[in-house]
Amino acid sequence: MTTDVSKYRLNHVMYRIRDPKASVRFYSEALGMKLLDTMHSDEAKFSLYFFGYEDPATSSTARLARQGVLELTHNHGSENDAGFAYDTGNGDKGGYGHIAVTVDNLDAACERLDKLGVRFIKRPTEGRMRHIAFVADPDGYRVELLENPELAA
Amino acid sequence: MTTDVSKYRLNHVMYRIRDPKASVRFYSEALGMKLLDTMHSDEAKFSLYFFGYEDPATSSTARLARQGVLELTHNHGSENDAGFAYDTGNGDKGGYGHIAVTVDNLDAACERLDKLGVRFIKRPTEGRMRHIAFVADPDGYRVELLENPELAA
Repeated sequence: MTTDVSKYRLNHVMYRIRDPKASVRFYSEALGMKLLDTMHSDEAKFSLYFFGYEDPATSSTARLARQGVLELTHNHGSENDAGFAYDTGNGDKGGYGHIAVTVDNLDAACERLDKLGVRFIKRPTEGRMRHIAFVADPDGYRVELLENPELAA
Repeated sequence: MTTDVSKYRLNHVMYRIRDPKASVRFYSEALGMKLLDTMHSDEAKFSLYFFGYEDPATSSTARLARQGVLELTHNHGSENDAGFAYDTGNGDKGGYGHIAVTVDNLDAACERLDKLGVRFIKRPTEGRMRHIAFVADPDGYRVELLENPELAA
């Protein structure tokens, strides 16, 4: 048996969500990702939602043969418990930080998200780092926004 | 101002690490990632380490113009405190789950990581899901390993 590490890829990141309806809406409509795949297990009482951006540079659209995939895990029932909340990682000793989405134009992207009612944690005009923004997803997970220098004018 | 969501990309995932020496060794030597970029701030007392796999399908090697980037944040000083530990997300109410790396051959990849002394959380031979494995990074963050179907024989 042999393995060639040059063929390895960072395929996805996974976190758990309380309410798939809210999260699917956020990642599809607000962030513009495509729902690549779903898996549901009634027996084990969980569902998986796989998101990613369409990327012509990626040789395959299959979710296991590409990078930049977001896997959201929903343990059935949490959506009916309004008091349920996951630890989203940025409190005291919280290890998890955020995902980051690169955009073509940061100000225009923020203006669009503002109109869609997305909650901002940090706008480009706030703080010292004017080249980044942070928004919150429905669970409160942080999503950083920053410009792709190859797309920005 | 306009923005085109079809140009957005899922660029990176960030989490915090206790000891950069241990993490750089793990992600470089064990997982075979390339250290794409580093940033250090003595004033704000943190360092950033950006990792990713080389990907011919990606149009650019610039870390902001690609997908599949792992950003590790080191807040200076934690490496000298043996009792310091980040919450890596999989306890009670833990939202963060894992990153996943696709490999060419799961059994061969696991055999190689075993020889390197990497800690396994789940081997392919354990549990019901025989097509995946989980290893732990130096902080205990979970890394899932699974086969890329376009590479597997």
